[in-house]
Amino acid sequence: MTLKVVVIGGGSSYTPEIIEGMILRYDAFPVTDIVLVDIEAGKGKLEIVGRLAARMIEEAEKPINLSWTLDRKQALEGADFVTTQIRVGGLQARASDERIPLSHGYIGQETNGAGGALKAFRTIPVLMDIARDIHDICPDAWMINFTNPAGMVTEALLKHSAHDKVIGVCNIPYNMRHSVAEIMNVDPSTVRIEFVGMNHFVFGRNVFVNGINRTEEVLEKLAGDDLDYSPANIVSLGWSKTFIAATRLLPNPYHEYYFHTREVLKKDIQAFEAHGTRAEVVQQLEGSLFELYRNPDLRVKPKELEQRGGAYYSDVACSLMDSIYNDKGDIQTVNTSNHGAISDFADDSVIEVNCVITKDGPKPLAIGKLPYQVKGAIQHMKAFEELVIQAAINGSYEDAYLAFLMNPLVADEESSKILLDEMLAANQAYLPQFQK
Amino acid sequence: MTLKVVVIGGGSSYTPEIIEGMILRYDAFPVTDIVLVDIEAGKGKLEIVGRLAARMIEEAEKPINLSWTLDRKQALEGADFVTTQIRVGGLQARASDERIPLSHGYIGQETNGAGGALKAFRTIPVLMDIARDIHDICPDAWMINFTNPAGMVTEALLKHSAHDKVIGVCNIPYNMRHSVAEIMNVDPSTVRIEFVGMNHFVFGRNVFVNGINRTEEVLEKLAGDDLDYSPANIVSLGWSKTFIAATRLLPNPYHEYYFHTREVLKKDIQAFEAHGTRAEVVQQLEGSLFELYRNPDLRVKPKELEQRGGAYYSDVACSLMDSIYNDKGDIQTVNTSNHGAISDFADDSVIEVNCVITKDGPKPLAIGKLPYQVKGAIQHMKAFEELVIQAAINGSYEDAYLAFLMNPLVADEESSKILLDEMLAANQAYLPQFQK
Amino acid sequence: MTLKVVVIGGGSSYTPEIIEGMILRYDAFPVTDIVLVDIEAGKGKLEIVGRLAARMIEEAEKPINLSWTLDRKQALEGADFVTTQIRVGGLQARASDERIPLSHGYIGQETNGAGGALKAFRTIPVLMDIARDIHDICPDAWMINFTNPAGMVTEALLKHSAHDKVIGVCNIPYNMRHSVAEIMNVDPSTVRIEFVGMNHFVFGRNVFVNGINRTEEVLEKLAGDDLDYSPANIVSLGWSKTFIAATRLLPNPYHEYYFHTREVLKKDIQAFEAHGTRAEVVQQLEGSLFELYRNPDLRVKPKELEQRGGAYYSDVACSLMDSIYNDKGDIQTVNTSNHGAISDFADDSVIEVNCVITKDGPKPLAIGKLPYQVKGAIQHMKAFEELVIQAAINGSYEDAYLAFLMNPLVADEESSKILLDEMLAANQAYLPQFQK
Amino acid sequence: MTLKVVVIGGGSSYTPEIIEGMILRYDAFPVTDIVLVDIEAGKGKLEIVGRLAARMIEEAEKPINLSWTLDRKQALEGADFVTTQIRVGGLQARASDERIPLSHGYIGQETNGAGGALKAFRTIPVLMDIARDIHDICPDAWMINFTNPAGMVTEALLKHSAHDKVIGVCNIPYNMRHSVAEIMNVDPSTVRIEFVGMNHFVFGRNVFVNGINRTEEVLEKLAGDDLDYSPANIVSLGWSKTFIAATRLLPNPYHEYYFHTREVLKKDIQAFEAHGTRAEVVQQLEGSLFELYRNPDLRVKPKELEQRGGAYYSDVACSLMDSIYNDKGDIQTVNTSNHGAISDFADDSVIEVNCVITKDGPKPLAIGKLPYQVKGAIQHMKAFEELVIQAAINGSYEDAYLAFLMNPLVADEESSKILLDEMLAANQAYLPQFQK
Repeated sequence: MTLKVVVIGGGSSYTPEIIEGMILRYDAFPVTDIVLVDIEAGKGKLEIVGRLAARMIEEAEKPINLSWTLDRKQALEGADFVTTQIRVGGLQARASDERIPLSHGYIGQETNGAGGALKAFRTIPVLMDIARDIHDICPDAWMINFTNPAGMVTEALLKHSAHDKVIGVCNIPYNMRHSVAEIMNVDPSTVRIEFVGMNHFVFGRNVFVNGINRTEEVLEKLAGDDLDYSPANIVSLGWSKTFIAATRLLPNPYHEYYFHTREVLKKDIQAFEAHGTRAEVVQQLEGSLFELYRNPDLRVKPKELEQRGGAYYSDVACSLMDSIYNDKGDIQTVNTSNHGAISDFADDSVIEVNCVITKDGPKPLAIGKLPYQVKGAIQHMKAFEELVIQAAINGSYEDAYLAFLMNPLVADEESSKILLDEMLAANQAYLPQFQK
Repeated sequence: MTLKVVVIGGGSSYTPEIIEGMILRYDAFPVTDIVLVDIEAGKGKLEIVGRLAARMIEEAEKPINLSWTLDRKQALEGADFVTTQIRVGGLQARASDERIPLSHGYIGQETNGAGGALKAFRTIPVLMDIARDIHDICPDAWMINFTNPAGMVTEALLKHSAHDKVIGVCNIPYNMRHSVAEIMNVDPSTVRIEFVGMNHFVFGRNVFVNGINRTEEVLEKLAGDDLDYSPANIVSLGWSKTFIAATRLLPNPYHEYYFHTREVLKKDIQAFEAHGTRAEVVQQLEGSLFELYRNPDLRVKPKELEQRGGAYYSDVACSLMDSIYNDKGDIQTVNTSNHGAISDFADDSVIEVNCVITKDGPKPLAIGKLPYQVKGAIQHMKAFEELVIQAAINGSYEDAYLAFLMNPLVADEESSKILLDEMLAANQAYLPQFQK
Repeated sequence: MTLKVVVIGGGSSYTPEIIEGMILRYDAFPVTDIVLVDIEAGKGKLEIVGRLAARMIEEAEKPINLSWTLDRKQALEGADFVTTQIRVGGLQARASDERIPLSHGYIGQETNGAGGALKAFRTIPVLMDIARDIHDICPDAWMINFTNPAGMVTEALLKHSAHDKVIGVCNIPYNMRHSVAEIMNVDPSTVRIEFVGMNHFVFGRNVFVNGINRTEEVLEKLAGDDLDYSPANIVSLGWSKTFIAATRLLPNPYHEYYFHTREVLKKDIQAFEAHGTRAEVVQQLEGSLFELYRNPDLRVKPKELEQRGGAYYSDVACSLMDSIYNDKGDIQTVNTSNHGAISDFADDSVIEVNCVITKDGPKPLAIGKLPYQVKGAIQHMKAFEELVIQAAINGSYEDAYLAFLMNPLVADEESSKILLDEMLAANQAYLPQFQK
Repeated sequence: MTLKVVVIGGGSSYTPEIIEGMILRYDAFPVTDIVLVDIEAGKGKLEIVGRLAARMIEEAEKPINLSWTLDRKQALEGADFVTTQIRVGGLQARASDERIPLSHGYIGQETNGAGGALKAFRTIPVLMDIARDIHDICPDAWMINFTNPAGMVTEALLKHSAHDKVIGVCNIPYNMRHSVAEIMNVDPSTVRIEFVGMNHFVFGRNVFVNGINRTEEVLEKLAGDDLDYSPANIVSLGWSKTFIAATRLLPNPYHEYYFHTREVLKKDIQAFEAHGTRAEVVQQLEGSLFELYRNPDLRVKPKELEQRGGAYYSDVACSLMDSIYNDKGDIQTVNTSNHGAISDFADDSVIEVNCVITKDGPKPLAIGKLPYQVKGAIQHMKAFEELVIQAAINGSYEDAYLAFLMNPLVADEESSKILLDEMLAANQAYLPQFQK
C-alpha cells in the first residue's frame, strides 16, 4: 500500500521543512512517495530543493521515493495528500502589493489590506485549477493549502471548486500557542487556546494549560509586557494594559495592522524608504537560503529557515496529515467551513478554529456568538473577504473596488480606485479574469 | 489530595453500577471518597445499597472511603463530582404518568408525551435545589445528571440555576453505538456516530468505523432488519426500508413513539391491560434486585442489573468523570448547551451531541443545520421542551397546557386539558410550584 | 392604454365573483380587457361562465372587452395581471384526496394532511408551466394565485420559477377580519389583525380596531363563544377558554384539524359515510350553480355563490390588483416571501402576512420571532411544506414519503407509505414527475 | 378631550419649527395644549422662545394653550406626546467633542466617531431619566426623540428604559427624499426610498416615484453630479461614478466621514483652524437667531432657521405625531426596533427604516439581508453602537474604550485611549456614570 504526498510549489524555500516533518513522523505516518511539483519558471529552484530533499531522506535512512516534476497532472495520480504552497507572480508581484499602497500612504502588506486582496485575486484562480485537477485525478486526496491568504483561498475553494476535501493551515495559531507556552513556562503540548475568527484575524478567547483555564494570567502577562509573538515579517509593538483589559482577548500579530495602523504605517514607510519592500528583503534572504541548499554537504534542514515568517507552516501541515491518516481525534487549529460553529456566520463561511482531526477531516468545535468586544471588526473583515473571493472568481471591477472600500485599511472612495487601478495594471499578467 | 464523588439518589438500584464503574477506572480516576445521599423515604434502600457498595469496594481492594447519609449539604462539602439519579414521587408517580394517558388512549410513557412533561414538572424544582446547594457548597464541582428527562432537566439547570457546571447523560447514544458495533461486527471503541438532536429525540447522521464513513452500510443493515437497539423499556418494531431510504438517518428507540404511534399505543395498551403499567413491572424487578443486594455474600454488581432499561447510564457517567478529571480530550455524547453547534437552535438550548471532553467540560462539535428530513419534528420537540421547562419553573397552568398541546403525542385541545388536570391532581404532593 | 386581466381557470364557478369585483372597482381600476382561459376538459363550463360574465358586464354598462379561449399563450399577450384558479384533476382528484386518508382513519382534506400534499403534487408543476409562459410572454404581469394550497404553490413558484412577480391570496384572513368585525360590532374596514404564520396555518396575534389594540376583548369573546368563522367546508367546534387563555392567539378555522383532530376526524368520517366526500357534495353544488349560470336572464353574480367555502377569494384578488395598480400603500394580507419578516424563517420562505401593497408589489411588515406558544407547530408545518414543494418539483418518492411522515396529521411510518402508495396510484395521470 | 404635547428642550432655537408644524396641521391634529420645558440653565432662552411661540399661535388664531416651565414632572401630566430635543452640556460640550479629536488628527464631529460616542455618553442617562418620568406620569404618551445621536439614544431607551413607546426621528431620510425629488423633478410626496441601516449610517436601496422603481436613473444622476443633499453642517464632496457603480446604493451625507475620511478631515481641520469648531460657528448662528426671536414683531418662524443642519427635524416629528394620532397607515422613516426587519440584526436592535405609522406605533417593513456591498461596514457600525450604549448605561471605562477602538473613525489602540481620557476629563460634569 502506498501513501503518497504531492507538494505543489515544491521549489519553495520552505520545502525542506515539510520534508523534515515527514521524516520525523515516519513511524506513524509512513509516506512511501513524495513528488515535488513546480512550474517552468521555478524549474531551477525545484532542482536545488529536490536534490536537498533527496539528501535529507537518504541521511534519515527512510524508504521514501522522492521525485520532482513539472507535470502536475501526472504527479497527482494516486495522491493521498496534496499540499499547496505557491506564489503566483513570485516576489515581484508581492513587491508591487507592498509598494503601491505604501506609496499612497496605506498599509502595503502581503496578506492584509489592498495587498492581501491582490494576492487573493492572483492566487485563487490558480488554486481553483489545481483543485479541479485533484478532483478529477485523485478525488479522495486531501488538499492541504498553506498558500496565503490561506483563509480566503480555502473559502473560495470550498465554495466554488468541486473538491470539498480542502483544509487551510497557517502558522499563526501554532506560534501563538508556542508563545503562550513560553510565557507560562510550560510545554506547548499542554496549551490549548480557544481561537475565534478567521485566518490572520483570529483572536484567542480562552487559554487552557493542562485543561485548566489560565486566561487571566496569560492576559496579565500579555498586557504591556515585551512578549513578542510576531513572526519575522511583522512589526511588533506589543499591546497595552488598556487594550487587554478592555478586549480580554489574545490578539494575533496581524492585528497590529488594524489597531496600530498609524504607527505601523510610519515604521513600514521608514523601512520601505530604507530597504525597499519586504518582498525585496525576502528576495535576498531567499538567495542566501538557496546558496545553502546548493551545498551538496547539507543533508538536513538548515536552521536559517526557522527565521522566516512562514516557519512552522509545513510542520502544521505534517501534523494535520498525520492526524487525518491515523484518525487521531486530536485538536488542531485549521481553516474549515463554519458549519454553525460561529453563530454569527453563514454555515459555509470559512473560519480558523479548533477542530477535532479525524480521517473524515476536521470537525470544528462550536464557539457560539462572536465576542461582543470585537464582533464588529470581525464581521467587517468577513464581509471584506466575501467581496474579495467574489471578485477573484468573477473578475468584476466593481466587486474588487467594493473589497477595497470595505477593507478597514483602505476604506476610502478615491484611494480605493487609485490603488486598485495601479495594482490591477501592475498585475495584468496574473489576472486573466479581470481582462474580460 | 482528595477526589470526592457524591451520588445523589444513592439508594437507587442502579448505584452498584456506578460503584463498579469507579472501581474499574480506579487507576486513572483514583476516587478517594464516595458519599451516597438519599432522602428519608429512601433510607431503607440506601442502607442496603450502601452495604453492597462497601462490600464491592472491599472485594476490589481499593482504598476508597465510602459512606451514606441523608444530610445532603454535609455530603456536598469538598465534592469534585456530584451525580444525580433521583425519582421524585417514586415509582407510584411514574405509574400515574403511564396510566392516565393510556387510559385516555394516549402514549403513557416515562419520558415522552404527557408523562415526560409531568416527570419534568416534578423533577426540575428538586434538581434546582440541588444545583443551588452545589453552587453554594462546592461551586467547582461538576454536576452529572442522569435523572430523566435528562435533556430538559439539563436545559432547565443551565438556563435557570446559578450553577453552570452541569452535564446531562443518557445511555441511548451508548446503546446505539454498541448496537451499531454489533451489526458491523467491530469493537464499539472504533465506532463514532455523529448525533444530531436532543435527548430521547436524537438521530445518528453519520457512522464512522475507524474513521471511515460507513453510514450507507449501517443504514442498509438497519432497514427492515431485526436489529434491536431498544432498551428493555421500549417496544421494538424495527424500521422499514422506506423509512430508512427516506430519512437516511439512524433513529433512536424512542422514535418508535413518534413514528409508530398507533402500533406502539396498541401494544402498550395491551401490556397495560395484561400487566399494569411499566412502573408496576419495574417495581417487581426492583423488589427482586433488592433481594439480591441484601445477600451479604454478594460482593459484585449482579448481572441482573444489566437487563434494566437504564443500564450503562452510570457507566457513561463514569467515563465522563474520568475524561474531565484527566482532560482526556476524547469524544463523548452528552447533553450540553448548543453554543451554536446546531445553527437552527438558540445558543442556550441544550442538545445531545458529540463533545470533546476536557477538564473545562464538554465542547460540542459543530453540526450546522438540522437535517432537512426531520427538521420540523426536531424543532417541534424543542419548542415543546421549552414550554415544559418554562412551566416547570413558573408553575403556570397555561404554559403546562401549551406544553401538552405542543407535544406531538398529545396535541389535542380537549385531551390536553383532561390529561393535564388529572395528572396535576395525581401529582399534587410533588408540584408545589403549581399550587400558587 | 390597456389594462388587461387574464383569468386562468376562467371556467370556474367562482369566476362571476371576480367579474363582479372588477365591475365594482371599475372607476379606480379601469380594466379594458378580460380574457377567461381554460383547458379542453373545461370548455363547456368556460362557455357558460363566459356568457354569464358578458351579460354581467353588459348589465353594468362598462366598456370592458371580454373574451374566452383555450389558447393560454395567446391570451397572455399584453396581460397586466394573471389570476390563477385551477383544479388539476378536477373534483374526482379531490375526492380521492379525501377518501383515501379517511378510509385509513386519517384526516382527508383538500388542503391539509395527505390530501393537501397530493393537491400540491398535482398543482405545482402545472402552475410552474403557467409561470414560465407568463415570464416569456408578459414578464411585467403580476401573477395572482388563488389555487390551493396557496401558500405552498406560491413558495414553489417564487423559489423555482423564473417569474418573481407572484402573489398568493386566500380568503381566510379576509374571513377572520370580517368575523372579528362582526363580534366587535364594527365595520370590517376598521379592523386590522396582525397575522403570523403561513397559509391555512396562520394565527392572529393582535387585533386593532381603528388603531386601538383590542386583542384582549376579542380573545375573551372568542373563548367558548359560539362564534363561527369557519368557511363552509370546515367543521366548526369553537375554541375553549383554556385554549384561548394559553395561546392568547386567534386560531384560523383550519387549526381545527390540528388541535381537534380526534373529534373532527370522527365527524368527518360520519359525514363521509353519510354523504360521501366533500368533493362529491361540492360536485352537486357546482351542478346547481351552473344550472343557474345557464339562465340567460341571470345578469349578476347569484347570491348562492357566497355560500361556498371559497367565497371572497376573488374579491381579495381584486382588491390586491386595485392596490397594485394604484400604488395604494394600504395593508392587505397575502402570501409572499418572508424577506426577514419572521426571524425564525429563511428569507425565501413564503408566509401569510400583512403587507403594504405598492405598485412594486407587497412589502411585508416585520413580525420578529414566532410566538413561543405555537412556535414548534408552525416550524413543523413549514418544514412539511418544504418537503412537499421539494417532492412536487423533483418527483422523489422519498421526499414525498418524508412529507407525509413530517405532516402532523399523518406522522406514521407505516401509514405514510400506505397512504402515499394509494394516492400516487389514484393520481397517476396527474403526476408525471413521479413516473420517472 | 385634550391633546397635549410636551416639548422637552423647549428653549431650543428649533422650537419655532415644531410650533409652526402643529399650527399647520391643526385641522387634522388639533393640539389643545403645548408645554415647553427646559432646565434652569436654559431659562432665558425658554422665555424668549416661549413668547415667540405664543405670538405665532396668536397670529395663526388657533385655540392652543401654550405655557413654559422648568418643572418637567408637572408638565408631563396628561401628556399624549413628548418630544425631546436636548443638548446636554450645551454647545461648549459639543465644541470639545469636535476639538479634541481634530487636534489629534481624527474626525471631530457631533454625531460620528469619538464625538458621537461622547454625546451618547452625556445624553443617554438624561433621556433615561425623562423616559422614567414619562413612564411614571403619562405612561400612554409617545416619546418622540430627536436628540442626537438619535439611533443610539432610541436603542438605549427601548432596551434599557421601562417606557417602550419611544420613536427616534432624524431629518436625513427627509432630506434625501426631498433631494431625490428635486433631481427627478417630481413632488417629494411621490417619492419613496427604501432605507436600510441605522441613523446617520442609512443607505437608500430602491427609489420609487409614484410606485415605479427608478433607482437606476437616480443613481445615474447621483454619480459624479454636483447634487448636494448634505445638511448645512457637513462637507459635501459628491460621490464618484465608480462608487455608485459598485455600491448601487444611495449613501447619506454622513457617509462622507467614512468613505472620504482623508479629504473631509483635511477640510475640517482647515475650517477648524480658520473658524474654530462647528460648535462655535453654531453658537454665533444661535446668537443671531435669538436676536431675531426677541423681536416682538416676529410672529412666524423666521426663514433663517431653515439654513440650520437640523432643519425639518421637527417637521418630521409633527408628521409622525399626526399619523399616530390619526392611525394614518402611511409610510415614514423612523428609528425603531428591528423586530426581524433586517435579518442580520437582533430583534431588539434599533434601525432606521420605513414603517407603517399606526396608532399602535411604527411597524417596520421587512428588509431581509443587508446589502452585500456594504454589509461589513453596517455590521461594524452596529457593533460600535452597542458598545457605546453599554458604556453609556454602565459607565465602564473598558466598554467606552472598546467603543472608540471599534469605531472605524478611531480604531487605534493608542489614540483611543488618548482621545477617551481627554474627552472624559472635558466632560466630567456630565458623566456621573463614569465617576464610580
